[in-house]
Amino acid sequence: MAILVVGSIALDTIQSPYGKVERSLGGSATFFSLSASYFTDVRMIGVVGEDFTADDENVLRKRGIDTRGIEHAKGKTFHWSGEYGANPNDCKMHALELNVFEKFQPKIPAEYRDSEYVFLANIDPMLQARVRTEMRGAKLFGLDTHPFWIQTTPEQLSAAIPGIDFMIINDGEAKQFAGEQNLLRAAKKILAKGPKALVIKHGEYGATIFFGPKAKQLGDHPFRAPALPIDQVQDPTGAGDAFAGGFMGYIASQGELHAEVMRRAMFYGGVMGGFAVEKFGTERLLWLTRNEIEERFQLFREMTHLE
Amino acid sequence: MAILVVGSIALDTIQSPYGKVERSLGGSATFFSLSASYFTDVRMIGVVGEDFTADDENVLRKRGIDTRGIEHAKGKTFHWSGEYGANPNDCKMHALELNVFEKFQPKIPAEYRDSEYVFLANIDPMLQARVRTEMRGAKLFGLDTHPFWIQTTPEQLSAAIPGIDFMIINDGEAKQFAGEQNLLRAAKKILAKGPKALVIKHGEYGATIFFGPKAKQLGDHPFRAPALPIDQVQDPTGAGDAFAGGFMGYIASQGELHAEVMRRAMFYGGVMGGFAVEKFGTERLLWLTRNEIEERFQLFREMTHLE
Repeated sequence: MAILVVGSIALDTIQSPYGKVERSLGGSATFFSLSASYFTDVRMIGVVGEDFTADDENVLRKRGIDTRGIEHAKGKTFHWSGEYGANPNDCKMHALELNVFEKFQPKIPAEYRDSEYVFLANIDPMLQARVRTEMRGAKLFGLDTHPFWIQTTPEQLSAAIPGIDFMIINDGEAKQFAGEQNLLRAAKKILAKGPKALVIKHGEYGATIFFGPKAKQLGDHPFRAPALPIDQVQDPTGAGDAFAGGFMGYIASQGELHAEVMRRAMFYGGVMGGFAVEKFGTERLLWLTRNEIEERFQLFREMTHLE
Repeated sequence: MAILVVGSIALDTIQSPYGKVERSLGGSATFFSLSASYFTDVRMIGVVGEDFTADDENVLRKRGIDTRGIEHAKGKTFHWSGEYGANPNDCKMHALELNVFEKFQPKIPAEYRDSEYVFLANIDPMLQARVRTEMRGAKLFGLDTHPFWIQTTPEQLSAAIPGIDFMIINDGEAKQFAGEQNLLRAAKKILAKGPKALVIKHGEYGATIFFGPKAKQLGDHPFRAPALPIDQVQDPTGAGDAFAGGFMGYIASQGELHAEVMRRAMFYGGVMGGFAVEKFGTERLLWLTRNEIEERFQLFREMTHLE
């Protein structure tokens, strides 16, 4: 089943102790789409500027991603520049130039209207809410956000999440959004705002899904997927979006949602997030094989499996 | 099979947002012993002062713990006082009075000499090494440590760990001891110092075991056990020792060690560490039933289990 994603498309300049890339294709919609493309058909909505090349678009097309929803605007593409330290959780931002992304108004092409799965990647929650309303016939919605929206427009974010099936955020965002240091209490507070389930990503420690009353058929208790210890985190950019792509992409590929599908989706999320950080930018997500993904999935399974 | 533990016995004064206890029985050997006592026979070695009461000792005896190895010395018992913040990882230490523990020289009673399993809880690594030499006929050794020894006597610690079967430490200690921010590389560096396997505890995120070349029969890849999200961490004191007690206690109870025993032991460690933090001091570890432990174990299993 096709999944529609709306989010940012960026040209990233990234430095880490392992090297540097300049104006490399990135953004939340990009990482999500590449990751999800290994599982299902992906339809992308975003905006780019005049510096976005045919080569950039071909990176997406080669993975079979439908790029008809990418708007080409006058001006420059969203540009982000950051530098990671020896600890990949430490990141110094050098530049954040929104450019054409600043006035982004998502337009949903007619060909995308029948998408049954929708992922609202990190963008202004007011735009997320609008896309959700326009796509109200879809079967399942996922949503991500960013500390920027939690800090500046928490009410708009709270208004965007009721009825969302899977809200996917990280530890720090969950604690900040809930105003609560304890993760379980933070999860409960966020679930009370209306998403059916909440996936909280713990970086190198994996991710946990918590269920609200409307997702009881998926589980009574939280479910946790591990992350594989990796000795070289070359570039953590996009790991969360790649997680979301594996998670939502697998769910969309199954057509029906039940507890075991959701559990496997959590593991595929971890698998794809782990691949993303092994190389710079999107590199590791361009040439994976389904076989590599399955092998890694089995490794993840073995990593926590009791007879 | 009986397990011998040598470590600290303390009277702890602990405050957290959930309350306060004064001069409550604690210490690494105490938490370890109470936890392990649900799985196997436990023999304790430690030192206490004149303020250690018959009631304190009865707490241990009621759990069937052999206390003949507890030395009663002139002076006061080791006393620790600390205050946890809203984030249980933040702890302000108010007092650390070693008292009789300062000159502790472990003496192994004749009745303990046939112990097949030995746990060297957090004490001076020179004492750990000495007990290990004296107990050289034992089948399996576990060892824990503390940032204090990593900082002040790293060479003595390095000298104590070759041939240890399971070194059990936490994230921060592993990174500090290895001088390495990446956890997998830190684990490899520590394994190169000689322990057969290394268990790294991640607090609320569970724990991972890494294997050196001499533990290949237990696994080729790291294995991870989860931790249950808990909404009230009343008092994190002793959680690591309770983990070790569940882990080592279960292994000792099985008599033979293979991959599935080790995996289940990791889960039991997580279960017991989780119980420990639900109430103040040792309270939650005093009145558990084997049934409660098995129920929690099943919950942990369900929490990461794929069909």
